[in-house]
This record gives sequence, structure tokens and C-alpha cells, in this order.
Amino acid sequence: MNIDHLKKLLEGVRQGKVKVEKALQELKTLPFEEIGCATIDHHRSLRQGAPETIFGEGKTAEQIIAIMRKMQDKKNNILVTRLERQKVPAIKRFFPKARYYPQARVLTLVNHPIKIIGRGLILVVCAGTSDIPVAEEAIITAQTMGNQVEHLYDVGVAGIHRLMSQKEKLMSAHVLIVVAGMEGALPSVVGGLVDRPVIAVPTSVGYGSNFGGITALLAMLNSCASGIAVVNIDNGYGAAHVASLINRL
Amino acid sequence: MNIDHLKKLLEGVRQGKVKVEKALQELKTLPFEEIGCATIDHHRSLRQGAPETIFGEGKTAEQIIAIMRKMQDKKNNILVTRLERQKVPAIKRFFPKARYYPQARVLTLVNHPIKIIGRGLILVVCAGTSDIPVAEEAIITAQTMGNQVEHLYDVGVAGIHRLMSQKEKLMSAHVLIVVAGMEGALPSVVGGLVDRPVIAVPTSVGYGSNFGGITALLAMLNSCASGIAVVNIDNGYGAAHVASLINRL
Amino acid sequence: MNIDHLKKLLEGVRQGKVKVEKALQELKTLPFEEIGCATIDHHRSLRQGAPETIFGEGKTAEQIIAIMRKMQDKKNNILVTRLERQKVPAIKRFFPKARYYPQARVLTLVNHPIKIIGRGLILVVCAGTSDIPVAEEAIITAQTMGNQVEHLYDVGVAGIHRLMSQKEKLMSAHVLIVVAGMEGALPSVVGGLVDRPVIAVPTSVGYGSNFGGITALLAMLNSCASGIAVVNIDNGYGAAHVASLINRL
Amino acid sequence: MNIDHLKKLLEGVRQGKVKVEKALQELKTLPFEEIGCATIDHHRSLRQGAPETIFGEGKTAEQIIAIMRKMQDKKNNILVTRLERQKVPAIKRFFPKARYYPQARVLTLVNHPIKIIGRGLILVVCAGTSDIPVAEEAIITAQTMGNQVEHLYDVGVAGIHRLMSQKEKLMSAHVLIVVAGMEGALPSVVGGLVDRPVIAVPTSVGYGSNFGGITALLAMLNSCASGIAVVNIDNGYGAAHVASLINRL
Amino acid sequence: MNIDHLKKLLEGVRQGKVKVEKALQELKTLPFEEIGCATIDHHRSLRQGAPETIFGEGKTAEQIIAIMRKMQDKKNNILVTRLERQKVPAIKRFFPKARYYPQARVLTLVNHPIKIIGRGLILVVCAGTSDIPVAEEAIITAQTMGNQVEHLYDVGVAGIHRLMSQKEKLMSAHVLIVVAGMEGALPSVVGGLVDRPVIAVPTSVGYGSNFGGITALLAMLNSCASGIAVVNIDNGYGAAHVASLINRL
Amino acid sequence: MNIDHLKKLLEGVRQGKVKVEKALQELKTLPFEEIGCATIDHHRSLRQGAPETIFGEGKTAEQIIAIMRKMQDKKNNILVTRLERQKVPAIKRFFPKARYYPQARVLTLVNHPIKIIGRGLILVVCAGTSDIPVAEEAIITAQTMGNQVEHLYDVGVAGIHRLMSQKEKLMSAHVLIVVAGMEGALPSVVGGLVDRPVIAVPTSVGYGSNFGGITALLAMLNSCASGIAVVNIDNGYGAAHVASLINRL
Amino acid sequence: MNIDHLKKLLEGVRQGKVKVEKALQELKTLPFEEIGCATIDHHRSLRQGAPETIFGEGKTAEQIIAIMRKMQDKKNNILVTRLERQKVPAIKRFFPKARYYPQARVLTLVNHPIKIIGRGLILVVCAGTSDIPVAEEAIITAQTMGNQVEHLYDVGVAGIHRLMSQKEKLMSAHVLIVVAGMEGALPSVVGGLVDRPVIAVPTSVGYGSNFGGITALLAMLNSCASGIAVVNIDNGYGAAHVASLINRL
Amino acid sequence: MNIDHLKKLLEGVRQGKVKVEKALQELKTLPFEEIGCATIDHHRSLRQGAPETIFGEGKTAEQIIAIMRKMQDKKNNILVTRLERQKVPAIKRFFPKARYYPQARVLTLVNHPIKIIGRGLILVVCAGTSDIPVAEEAIITAQTMGNQVEHLYDVGVAGIHRLMSQKEKLMSAHVLIVVAGMEGALPSVVGGLVDRPVIAVPTSVGYGSNFGGITALLAMLNSCASGIAVVNIDNGYGAAHVASLINRL
Repeated sequence: MNIDHLKKLLEGVRQGKVKVEKALQELKTLPFEEIGCATIDHHRSLRQGAPETIFGEGKTAEQIIAIMRKMQDKKNNILVTRLERQKVPAIKRFFPKARYYPQARVLTLVNHPIKIIGRGLILVVCAGTSDIPVAEEAIITAQTMGNQVEHLYDVGVAGIHRLMSQKEKLMSAHVLIVVAGMEGALPSVVGGLVDRPVIAVPTSVGYGSNFGGITALLAMLNSCASGIAVVNIDNGYGAAHVASLINRL
Repeated sequence: MNIDHLKKLLEGVRQGKVKVEKALQELKTLPFEEIGCATIDHHRSLRQGAPETIFGEGKTAEQIIAIMRKMQDKKNNILVTRLERQKVPAIKRFFPKARYYPQARVLTLVNHPIKIIGRGLILVVCAGTSDIPVAEEAIITAQTMGNQVEHLYDVGVAGIHRLMSQKEKLMSAHVLIVVAGMEGALPSVVGGLVDRPVIAVPTSVGYGSNFGGITALLAMLNSCASGIAVVNIDNGYGAAHVASLINRL
Repeated sequence: MNIDHLKKLLEGVRQGKVKVEKALQELKTLPFEEIGCATIDHHRSLRQGAPETIFGEGKTAEQIIAIMRKMQDKKNNILVTRLERQKVPAIKRFFPKARYYPQARVLTLVNHPIKIIGRGLILVVCAGTSDIPVAEEAIITAQTMGNQVEHLYDVGVAGIHRLMSQKEKLMSAHVLIVVAGMEGALPSVVGGLVDRPVIAVPTSVGYGSNFGGITALLAMLNSCASGIAVVNIDNGYGAAHVASLINRL
Repeated sequence: MNIDHLKKLLEGVRQGKVKVEKALQELKTLPFEEIGCATIDHHRSLRQGAPETIFGEGKTAEQIIAIMRKMQDKKNNILVTRLERQKVPAIKRFFPKARYYPQARVLTLVNHPIKIIGRGLILVVCAGTSDIPVAEEAIITAQTMGNQVEHLYDVGVAGIHRLMSQKEKLMSAHVLIVVAGMEGALPSVVGGLVDRPVIAVPTSVGYGSNFGGITALLAMLNSCASGIAVVNIDNGYGAAHVASLINRL
Repeated sequence: MNIDHLKKLLEGVRQGKVKVEKALQELKTLPFEEIGCATIDHHRSLRQGAPETIFGEGKTAEQIIAIMRKMQDKKNNILVTRLERQKVPAIKRFFPKARYYPQARVLTLVNHPIKIIGRGLILVVCAGTSDIPVAEEAIITAQTMGNQVEHLYDVGVAGIHRLMSQKEKLMSAHVLIVVAGMEGALPSVVGGLVDRPVIAVPTSVGYGSNFGGITALLAMLNSCASGIAVVNIDNGYGAAHVASLINRL
Repeated sequence: MNIDHLKKLLEGVRQGKVKVEKALQELKTLPFEEIGCATIDHHRSLRQGAPETIFGEGKTAEQIIAIMRKMQDKKNNILVTRLERQKVPAIKRFFPKARYYPQARVLTLVNHPIKIIGRGLILVVCAGTSDIPVAEEAIITAQTMGNQVEHLYDVGVAGIHRLMSQKEKLMSAHVLIVVAGMEGALPSVVGGLVDRPVIAVPTSVGYGSNFGGITALLAMLNSCASGIAVVNIDNGYGAAHVASLINRL
Repeated sequence: MNIDHLKKLLEGVRQGKVKVEKALQELKTLPFEEIGCATIDHHRSLRQGAPETIFGEGKTAEQIIAIMRKMQDKKNNILVTRLERQKVPAIKRFFPKARYYPQARVLTLVNHPIKIIGRGLILVVCAGTSDIPVAEEAIITAQTMGNQVEHLYDVGVAGIHRLMSQKEKLMSAHVLIVVAGMEGALPSVVGGLVDRPVIAVPTSVGYGSNFGGITALLAMLNSCASGIAVVNIDNGYGAAHVASLINRL
Repeated sequence: MNIDHLKKLLEGVRQGKVKVEKALQELKTLPFEEIGCATIDHHRSLRQGAPETIFGEGKTAEQIIAIMRKMQDKKNNILVTRLERQKVPAIKRFFPKARYYPQARVLTLVNHPIKIIGRGLILVVCAGTSDIPVAEEAIITAQTMGNQVEHLYDVGVAGIHRLMSQKEKLMSAHVLIVVAGMEGALPSVVGGLVDRPVIAVPTSVGYGSNFGGITALLAMLNSCASGIAVVNIDNGYGAAHVASLINRL
């Protein structure tokens, strides 16, 4: 039941064509979404600039193409994350304008120019070179969501002076995404240097008792610095999403 | 907005006192629960015989009494679980008809006689004497929810002949609740003997590498017998609740 | 020793051909199953419509064919679960009527039409598209066991209005199987909306700290909604089995 | 070496009183913090309205009083978290204006009126009554840090309609702090309803396989909703701190 | 149905007093235990010298006394394990001959002299002084079950020469029980020195990442020495029980 | 320093060629193994019938052949465990008499006929067909170590009557090796039926929350039956080794 | 057999009073420790300055006094760790010169002045005030073992400038002991600043998902800085012991 | 800003060419590392003999070659760890003098002869043959860092006499690296025999409940011997690094 239908029903009541009891009955049983949740969807359509997102892992190229074609109708920008390289050529045959970032394993299809709607700079900081793929996923996601993004690489805690020498850049950021594997100590140090929200992303980089990123995850949750919140292991996309929401406020 | 209000609104429309647009506006923004969820609550009130339940752990006697007094207005039966003994006297001063079962740590207040609405027998089976408190919580809950309940105690897998000698009783049950700690093997054996749904309840009984019931929980989830579903450790109440829903179908 | 043999023995005693002592001796030492468990097997043979089931994982096509040929003698329907696609052609050469469901990784061989013996509707609800294989395993199992089955897909908790709009379908079910990976929250929401038993199936869908389904499993065991029991991770078959037993009561 | 000293040194060089080599030597060995980190401290002192915070757990009343007396010299507001009730009277003897919130286990000492510097509303949402202490810690922290704060209690996922009926309040918030124990599903549902950053706080409320909050923590990290970041178990203070930083941007 | 009854039934058949069909019916439904399991109990009564055992933890003195009084009728020896000291006086009032071993937390009641039925020596080896309570539980259990028992204390792996100097005693044992906490390395070293079965008992002695004995348990299960089998943490009784069964072969 | 050298030294002292002080000095510093441990090796060589064992996993065919050639000089029987099939042909070229058991992944080279030195029967019991490889490893190991071995397959706890019907065979065994995956309940049931030592072997068979055998391992360690000791997951060889030591006593 | 006895034996051989064969026999069977391990003990007695150590946890005051009295005979210095305060008065009655350090829970009895035998400075660095007890245990242990010890407190990673300002002190140390709880990041930063061995001590300080120090332990093991080795949680004694061994080289 | 620049600035001030305010401004904002951390780098360049190290895992041959070429400019020796064999030929084409150690998976490029700067012997001890790759990584690392290194292989705790016979070699070492998988007991025994620092390296060798080295790691952390510190699983490089730092003191 959409709003037109609802209007017609009320008109029927007004004109005496529809009995009050019958209208009451229909209103009582009308499915939830047709009134209440229409608002939600409308609200969502107001979020201009936000790309439609597809989680590529575990989907075939054909499935991804099918979803992209549906999305294409709305002319929104599209972001595909966790996309293995071998699926890209098939997708590009259908969407020649699509662009693939192999390190980040992300594909974007920009149907209309991305408008910067984020209020400040999102800075992506990362410790080791092995953390860069996760950092890149965050960067491209944040850019596609309409943010100005910069990065600071190779500033691990075991060479603290390299980080310290970048204090001004750190302080220029509105929101920081800090990516680290191994012992996951970088967000604590960064969080102690800035007065901005820090989104910490543990990565599965490491070996031995790293447990695929659990060590870094736990370290970040237990940080002695305040102002830090954590997303799931290797979840560069999720960090960029929450950072974008923050940056739009 | 309750149904009376809704009726009045529609009458206003019919009589021309309320404009269609105004009614439309009001209907579009009316809070969800006032239409959609009225149904839910109504539906819930149809569940005759179901007691109101209070989880007693971590609440003071005063808090429990306050909640019970509110419930009392609806004249429903009341069930308080996880109730430490020392809180009982204070409660009994307010509700002299309340009855406390110390082993199960459960208190009941029966305001109207419990009607048997379950279709068959719920049989509570338990291995060792240390599992009995959890079994008793399940028994009293199931009884209070309107089921015929019997039990079979001390039929552990290390003395399998005692269990085997009760095969007929096992087979007479409609639904079985099987409570076991330590290695948690009893549901597997019972599940292989009957063709009825078995709700398995791991208990925290054990020591060493029992891990407060995790061993029994894992064993039950990994049972080689089919027809078994599991609830949380020591959750006799939860097992009885789901068994009651099954028994009413 | 089957019942015919037992009868013959007693006849021999009656006719004086067999001495009482000899009969006594034979009875005392007869293996357990030949008396006591004959009942079980007889009982089991009463379960019409239940298919014979083979767990396909870790068995070669040849082993599966051999088991199916034995089962075939009894003319029961056959269900093979966890069957990798590459084993199917070899099986189909022997059993051309067999049908394979690739997404569910299930093969059925229907020797006699499936009779609906379940009393109500089993509804299989599932959150994300990645959970569908487990849901499909549950659906085909439940159908083959003689139940009317419907499903509700793509109703995850992060888009709660889609689920809410299906409240009536949810409430029409006799038993619900709710399949979810990631944070495993769907059974809690569904369990709060219906007054029917909910069998929750955690899936191994997720990444990072999902731990192959442990997160969803723990969430379901710790659900704040009552009326929920849980089966093992990805165990669509087990959920359908217990749901079938419930639906037959 | 503060800036005055540095200026004097350069003046000395200019006037020829200090040799270049000597100045060079002094500059090379000057301790880090005296130049570089002065900026930090200065920067920190710019954060008006931020209270000085003491983590009370494991400190004696005497230790807390000693720290508060030092802080008092700067006339900042003071927040003591995780403060057991029995330490309060001793503290109040020294600081009669201090106010203790027993449920939140937080003490505040407001030396100058708190100025609202947060840009929007921080909404603290919480599922069960047992989660309220953590929610209260978040509320008082956020208020003391200069935010307008409201709350929404008892809106658990097992009674989803209560949450749905508050959709407008949810959408009015700038930042949301969602507190939940047990299966930790609430942030997923809330995160799907709003387009604002959600800070999720798992609590140690639960039993059985809840593992002191690990289940809720994992569920939140694995949420299928985007826009969620997580802090440590029971860390209401930490959630409020990061929410405050977000709200000031 | 005992054997007399069975004989009578067959006689009835022989004499034509009982119809074959009726006898058949009775035989088909006779409960399992009355034939099959009689053998088990008879067999068990052959185990002379084995004491009746009560697990004392979580039982009140009254419950223990009640069980002991029943056992007393059969005049067997009695062993109570995990018995807290404060329950002893009450028990001794009823059973003045009972003897309590405070370190082992074991009580014995010897109604008839213990006959040595074990074939060789059981040697209990233990590393640190903190492991002695578990070792003592094993010693008294093994003695009460009719074995010759000796012990070797304070021979930890960090002072390997003390162990090496006892090689002859080690080699004189028939079965060895090796008790160790912390890193649980002792069974590996002992297992490499002897050609006898070693029952390893991890203890919960340790701190930090010892995890209440898990570290020792895992080390023992992963021993590079062959000939080692493991019982649960702190389970001195269980080790002695299996060692006794071995020693009787 | 071997015994000949020692003798020569003492002769030198006797003949006055070697000073007492010099002999004393040499004796004080002589390496441990040359006196003390000679005994050990001698002792070991007394263990007739015991095969030399090679753990094949992680070794190349060439490495295995090299070790076998050295062993061959002593003319002992040889047992290679955890041997992948593809390494077998290369080994057989060198040792044509070697025999490979593909299911058990074991290779034997019998240089002299195996003498039965075990005193009784070792019975290997196993629940599901997937546990058979581990059971076979145990069987071949035990046979090669000089034991009479029988087995009982497919007697899982979910079909308890099949196990019960084999009670006499169970009771005929001297030592039992019970192999089970999934919930690992079989040793508890068997341990309750016999009065012989039971060596329990958890297998990694299972899925979902089985954790590669941890569930079965924990269940076995927490068995409510006495007389059970446990070896590591899938360690059929280890179980047979300890069972052989027991069987030789 | 001590050295005197050995000498007498060799004299007997020299004088022809003892046959070579008899001497050979006696030497072959002499217990290990009497020759080989005398060297060890002798070697140990060379370790001047090392105190005798008693682990106080789980020992009664009486047991500790008994051990101290035996040690006292050798006139060594004595160190008692993990000593609860309430046991101290009883010990002091016997040993009035003993000194107790309540924060470190350590008691020392200095019978002869401690000689500095360590070659350089041991620097104990610690992050938060709650880590100080563990740091103090390390300091007193290291001092008692003859080292010059200094400390650096309150230099956590969230306020990195305080640590940076102490770079020269850090670089002056020979060996560093770095104590940290929570996320355990401090050793990584320190290890990146110095070229000396760092012994990292995780503490159980923290809450939520800290798991009693596991988070800090894992972080330290996974440090991205080289030159770090780790001891068990809260093991200040162990860190000081290994640092002392290093400092003596 | 390097020192030359700083000198020039001060000269400018002295000559009146640069205003004090301008110099002050420049000094206040100069990046940290250019003064403070220059010292660090200078200090590092003093560490003669230390090779530049590349962690090879997860890097392509091309990436490794690029890093090596940069390093080559400084003419330092180079060490590449965790290098898979298939990447070696490409690297050797660029660096024909490079040498690959396949077992240790290490590549070295020795540009100038390694000078022994370690003060004593580093002894690498290892239990089983499967631990040798980790031991070799430690050996080559320690040699390349300028130490005299020896090793002792195949001295596991289950054959303790082989270890005991090498006591003198053990005692000759300055620092010991002890490598062990499975139950990880070797460091405890070695630590009890020597008075030197022991760096323990757990390996992922084992199966069943070994958990990829966790069992060995925990055992080593919980060692009853003092003087042991632990590095991460399989981290031969890390052990050699810290041992080298110790050996240089």
C-alpha cells in the first residue's frame, strides 16, 4: 500500500464509498513497511554521493555483473570490495569504465563525478608495508564516499621518530584511520598525539601467535589511549564507512 | 494512537470534519507500534497460561517485589528464576502465596490454577545428581507453562544399562529435555533411542578442562545423533520455554 | 535371532522338541539387539516418509554408490548431503532418477512420492545471500522428510524493515529455521516476533574475528529472546531434522 | 627548555655572547619534549570543557584524593570512573561539592559550569536493564565533556517493535552509543536504521557461554551493518570519549 | 524378569499352559536390563577389593553420610574424594573408624583389610611441592584399590640430575603416575627413561598464562615421548583408577 | 669413554701406570652417557619385537629411505607412520618387501616374524566410518608391536544397541583403544561397560564447532566414567604404543 | 658415592685389594648424581651473590620459615617472592633482619652485603601506575642478585613525548626490563629506540578483553621491533633473573 | 633540517642576517627527527656488522630486489628471511654473490667480510629434526650478525641422556637459543643445567592439540626453570637478534 493507495482509501471514506469499519480493518492489517518504512527508503535516497557497495568475496563474476546492472539503472556510483583479480576482465567487458585497484582488491564504477561532501581530511595511517592493502581499501572507499583522503605509510612504533616527525600532518586530520598488524600498537601512539577520533583497523599481518589478527585486535580494544574505536580485522571498508559518516556530521 | 483514536479519525474524515490531507499526514507519521504492533501485543495476550517471568540474578529483593507488584495487576502467574535464597523472605512478606524451590532457585506465584495446554509429556532426563538443579529449573518452568512433566534422574552414559532399562518411558515422551555436564554425552545416546525432538542443556558441572560447561556444550552441538538442538549452559528455563512452544503446536 | 526364529524356538518348547534348559540357555545368551532392539527397528520402520541419509563429505563416489545400492533394496527415499559436485556424474550413471541441488550440495533419490506428514509450515528464514546454501540444505532436507516448506531470504537485521514487512508470513509458520552468519542476530529478532519454536543455524559466513561461525553460534546461544534452540555451524540438515520431528508431533 | 629560554639563547647568539658551536651543541641535545611537545600540551590546554579523568579501580581513596588535589590547582572539572561506593565518603570529606552516581560508579567534581561544545545530540541506546550501569557511565562522561545527551532504554532486539517506535528519536541523534550484552545484536539493528556513526559497547552481562562479554564483542565486530565501530567490554567511558571527539568536529 | 521367571514361562509353554503368542509377546517386550544387564552387575560384584567411591565436592556432609550408610550395608571399603575439611567432623561422628587425609582431601573407611591385588609397583612421581596434594589423592586411591604404591617427590625437570639419580626406582615400577603443573614437562622425561605405561596428570599449579592447568595438559598430550596417556587436570583419582586397572591385568 | 676404555683405565691404575689422582680426575669429568646411559640403551635392546618407528609426515621419501637403510642394519622390524601415498613407490623400490596400508597411511617392513608378546587381546573400538583411518593406524601399530588385535567398528553412541550387542567381545579384551570424533562420547559408554583400561583417541572428524578434534578431546578428558586415559588427537600410533606397554606387563 | 669413596676405590685397585672387574661393576652402576652432578652443584655454589629464592604463594608462614631456616645454615641471602602481607609478622619474629616490600610483595633477608657483580645498568621501564608492583618485584630481585638498577615510571605509549624525553636514560642501560599491561605496546617502542636486549613483562592489568594479561603477552610476542624476548604474565622475578644472567656475561 | 642547515641558521643569527623571531619560528616548527632523532640514526650507523634485514614473506621477488638495490648503496651486508625457494633465481640474477640456505629459507649477501663482534659462543640447541629449519634461521642470522655459533641437534627430552652427555658443550656457551616444538620442554631442562640466559623458540612442529606451536609457547612461558625468555613461534630470526644484542654487551 503506497501513499496514493492510502489517499484513495481516505477519499473513499470521505465520500462515503468506503465504510469506516472497512477502512479501519484495512489500516489495522496493512503491512508495516508501506507506511512506516517508506520514510526510511526515502531518507536513504537522500544520501547523495554514497556509492552502492557489493562485497565481492564468494560471488562469481556473473553474479557481480548481474547486481551491477541492476544498480546501474539508478545511475549511482558503484564500489566492489574484496574482488579477486581474475574476475575483473569479465566485469570490464560489461563495464569498460570500471577501474580496478589490484592492491586494494577494489573496483569502482564512477557514473557521475564524486562530490566532496566530507567536511575535513581523513588521514589513513599505516605501520608496515604489508598493511597497505587494507589501507588502500580504506582510502578508495573513503574517496568514493566523497572525502578528501591522505595517507601516511611506514610509520611503525618500532621506529617512533618517523611517526613523530609527521606530527603536524597527524594533527591536520579531521578523522584518522590507523591500520596495523602484528602487535597493533600504532593506534595507541597516534591516539595519544591527536585530539581527533581514531578508527583502528587490525590486520591479519603477522605470524606465530598473531592468530590472523586477533593479537592486533585485542591490543587495539585494550588501548591505553582514549578516543579510539575499532572495526573488524582487515575491514578497511568498514573503517572508511564509519569515518565517512563522522566526516559528514 | 490506539484503535479508538484511529476510528475517530476516520469518522472525522467521513463526516468531513477532517481533511483527507490532514488524515493522510497523521497516518504517515503515526508511530509504528500503535498500529502494527498492537497486533503483536494482542497476539501475546492470547498465550493463556504462560507465566510472566523475571530473571532474578543481579536484582535486589526490592526490585523483584516492585516488578511482581506491577505484574500482579494483570493477575497472571509469575515465575522468578535464578533467585538466591536470601531474597525469598522479603518477597514472601509481600506475596505469602509465593512458593520457593531452593534447589531450582525458582519462585512461583500461582494466581490462577495452571491449565495443562501442552499436548504430550515433557520428559526431563539428567545424568548426575549435580545436574539436578538445572533439571529442576526446567521442570518447574515447564509445569508453570502448562505442561505435564516427568523426569528420569541418574541415568548417565557410564552406566548405560540404567538408561536402557527406561527405554519405554523415554519413548512415551513428546519432547525430551536432556541435561548433562562433564562430557555431555547423554543427549547423543537418548537422541539415538527416541524419535522425538531432544532439547539438550549443558551444565557447568565438572572440573579440570570442563571450562564451566563449554566441553558439554561443544559435545552436544557436535552430537552424532540427529534430532538434537541445544540451549546455553545451565539454561534450564530456556530449554523448558522452547519445549513448551513445541508441546503446544 | 529374529521374531520368526524366536517363535520357532517357543513352538519347539511347546511341542517338547526343545528342552526348557536349552531354550533358557539360548534366551539368556541371545544378543541384545535381537529382542530388545527389534522394537526400535520396528518402531523406526514406522517412520514413513523419512529418507535414508548419507553424509557425503569424505566419502568417494564409489562408497556412496555402494551404500545407495544397499538402501535401494528397501525402496526408501535417499538423501545425500555435503556432496561435492564432481562426484555427481558417477552417481547419476547408476541412479539416473537422482536429482542434484548444487547450491545445497544435496542429492535426492525419490523412489516413492513424498507424503506430507508434517502438521504445519516450516519456514526457513535467512539473512544474507551467502547463507543461502545452508538454508537450501535445510529446505530440501525438510521437504524430503515430508514437510511443507517455505522460505524468506534477504531479511537481515541491518535492514530490519524488510523483515518487519513479513511479519504475517513469520507468524504463519509452525516451526522456524533461522539461518545467519556474521553476528548471528537474526534469530533473536525473529524469536521476539513469533510464539513458535525457532531452530537457529549459525553459518561460517564472515571474516576477521568471525572464527568460522563461532561468533554467530555464541550469539545465538546467548540470545535474549526465549524459544530458541541452536544446532551446529552450517548444519542445515540437523536443523531440518529436528524441525521435522517437531512438526510431526 | 621553554620558548623563553630558546629566545634568550638566540639573542645571545645574535649579540655574540654565545658561540654558534655552543648554541648548536645545546640545540642538538635538548630534550625532545621541550620544543616538540610543548605544542602538544598547549594544544591540549585548548580543549576547554574536557574534564581531567581518573580511573578509580585499584586505587585507594587516599590515592584518588591526592590526584584530585593536584588537579584542583588547575581548576578543571574532574571525572572519576570505576569508583566503588565505599571510597566515596572519604573523598566527599575533602571535596564536598563532588557528586557520586552509584549506578554508573562515577564521581564528578564540577569546578566551573560545563559548556556545551558538542555540535549535536549524543544518544545512548541500551537493550536490557542490566546494561544500564555501562550506559550511565557513558552518559555522565559525555555530559561532563560538554555534550547534550539523551538516552533510550529497554529497546532490545527481542522486542523489536519498541525500538521501531523510537525511530524518529534515533534519527535525531548526531552520534549514537549503543550498549548491549548477551548476543550483542542491538548495534546491528540500530546501525541499519540510522546514517550516523554508531559506537558499540559490549557489556559483560550474560551467563553460560557469554564469556564475560566476548560474545557481544565479537557480534559487534562482525556486524552486517556498516557505520559501526567498537570499544572494549563495559567501556562506557571510552565510548563517550570517542563520541565526544566526533561530536566536536 | 529374572531367570526363575523366564524358566517358569518356558515351563508354561512346554506344558501348554502358556500360549506361544503370549510368551512371544512377553519376551519381545521384556525390559533390557533384566536379562542383559544382570550380567554386568554380577560381573561388577566380582571386582573384590575395589572401594565404593563418592565424589565429595558439592555434596553436603549430610548427603555424604546418607550415601555412606547405604554403602555400609554391603560392607565394602569406602573412599570419599574432594572432601573439604569442615565436613569431616560430622562424618566422623557417624563413622568413627573413618580416616581423613587433609592434604589429599580424601577420606577412607576401611571395613575389611585391603588385599594387595595389583601385580606390581605403582610409582607416583611429582615435580614441585605444590603438586603434592594431587599426588597424594592418587596414592591413597591406588592403595585403597589394592596396590603397592611408592612415590618420588621434588624431581622437576629444571633440576634434571635429581630425577636421573632415581633411574633405578623409576625402572622398578610397573605403572607410573606422573603429576606436574607449570609447563608439564616431567612425563616426557620420565616416559623417555622407562618402558612402562605412564599416566600423566596435569595440575592447575602455575600462574600467568598457565590457564589453570591447560598449559600442562596440552604439553602432556603433545609429548614427544611415547607410552604416555593423560587424564584431566588435577584428577589424581582418575589416574589411580586407570593405573589400578592396568596393574591388575 | 666406553666400557673398554674404562677397563683399560682401571688396569692402568692397578699396574701403577696411571696415578690415582689422574684416574679420579678423568672419572669425575667423564660424560654422563658413557656409563650411566649405556644401561638404558642395553635395556632398550632387550625390548624384542618392538619395531623401529619413523614419523613420516614432513619427511621426503629420500629422507625416509636413508633412515630405513640405517635401521635395516640392525635387522629390526620397521614401522613408518603418517606416510603419504605418493612417497610409497620410491620406498618400495629400495625395500620391495615393505607393505603399505593406504587407509592407515602406515608402511611396515617385517624383517623377522612378529612374535606375540602381549598377554591379552587389544580391542580397537570405533564409532563412525570416518574414524577408521585412525583406528587402522592403531591396529597395525599394535600388531607390529607383538599384540593380538581385534576391532569393532560402527558402534557409535547414537545407535547404542549395536554396541550393547557386542558386550561380550568388549569384555573379552585386555586393553581397549576407543577411537571417536564428533562429540567423543564412545569411551564414556565403553568405560562404563568394562573393567579394563581404556585408551581414548579423539579424532579430528567433525565440522562446525568440532575444532579439529578439540571437542572430542575435551569430552574424553571430562568423561564421567573412570578407567579412561587419553592420547592426542588422531594419535592412533600413540594409543597403540601405550596399550602395548600395558599389555606386556 | 662421593669423591672420597671414589678415591678409596681407586686406591684399592692400585693396591690390588680391589679387582678391576669389581671396580668396573661398581663404577658402571654408580648413581648418576654422585659423579656427574656434583659438578653442577659445585658450579652452582660458584654463583656468588645469587640469593636463595622461595616462591611464597600457596605456602604457609610456617612452611616458609622452615625453608628459610635450612637456607640460613648456608648463610646465603634469601629472597621470598609473592608473599602476602599477613604472613610477614610471623616470619619477622624468626628473622628480625628480614625486610618486606609490600607493593612488590617481596621479602629479603640480607645475611651478607650484596656485591654488585652485574656489568652495567638494568633499567626497569613501566607504563602505568598499576604496573608498578610487577616492576618493583623485578627491581628488588635484580638488586638482590647484585645489579645496579634504575627505573623509569609512567612513560606509556599514549603520551609518547614523556618516553621520548628520556631517550638518553634509555640508551644508558645495559639491559632493559619493560613492564606493561593493557595493549602491551611499550616494549615495541622502547625496543625501537635502543640497541640493547629488552626483556618484556606483560602484566594482568586491564579489563574487558584484556584476559588477565593475555592481550599484552600476545602483543609483546608479536612485536614489530627486534631485540625483545618475553617472560610470563606478571613475572617480574623471572625477568630480573634472566636480565641478571645477561648482565653478568 | 640537518646539522649543517642548523649551523647556517645560527650563523645567520650571529651575523644579524636572520632575525631572532624568524629563527625561533623555524626552530619551533622543525620536524622532530631532524634534531632529536638524527642521534638515533647516527647511533644505528655505529652498529657495524649488523646486516640490513628484509622479511621476505609476502613480498614478490621484484619487491625484494628493489629493496636490496637501495640497501646495496650503503654496502652493508644483507639478510633476507622467510624467502621461498622459487623467488631465489630471480634475485640471484641481480645479486650473483647472494647465497641461499633452503632449509632455513634465508638468503645472505655478504658485501664485506663478517667481523666477529660477539663476545662468546651462541649455542643453538634443538630437539627434533623437524625443528631444524627454525634453528638454521637462528644460526645464519646470528652468524651474519657477527657471532661465533655452534649447534646441538637431536637432544630431545624424551631421550634425556643424549642431552646430558653434552653438558660440557652446554656450559661452554655464552647465550643459548633453545628451539623446540611439540610439548616445548627442552628449554626447561637446558635452563636447569646452565647459568646462562636461554632464549626459547617454540616451533609450530606437532599435530593434534599442538595448535601450531601454542602448546610449546605456553610451556616455555610457564617453565619452572629461571633464566628463560621467549620469542614468538618459529621466530628463529628474533631469537638470534636478541641473542646477538646480549652477546655484544
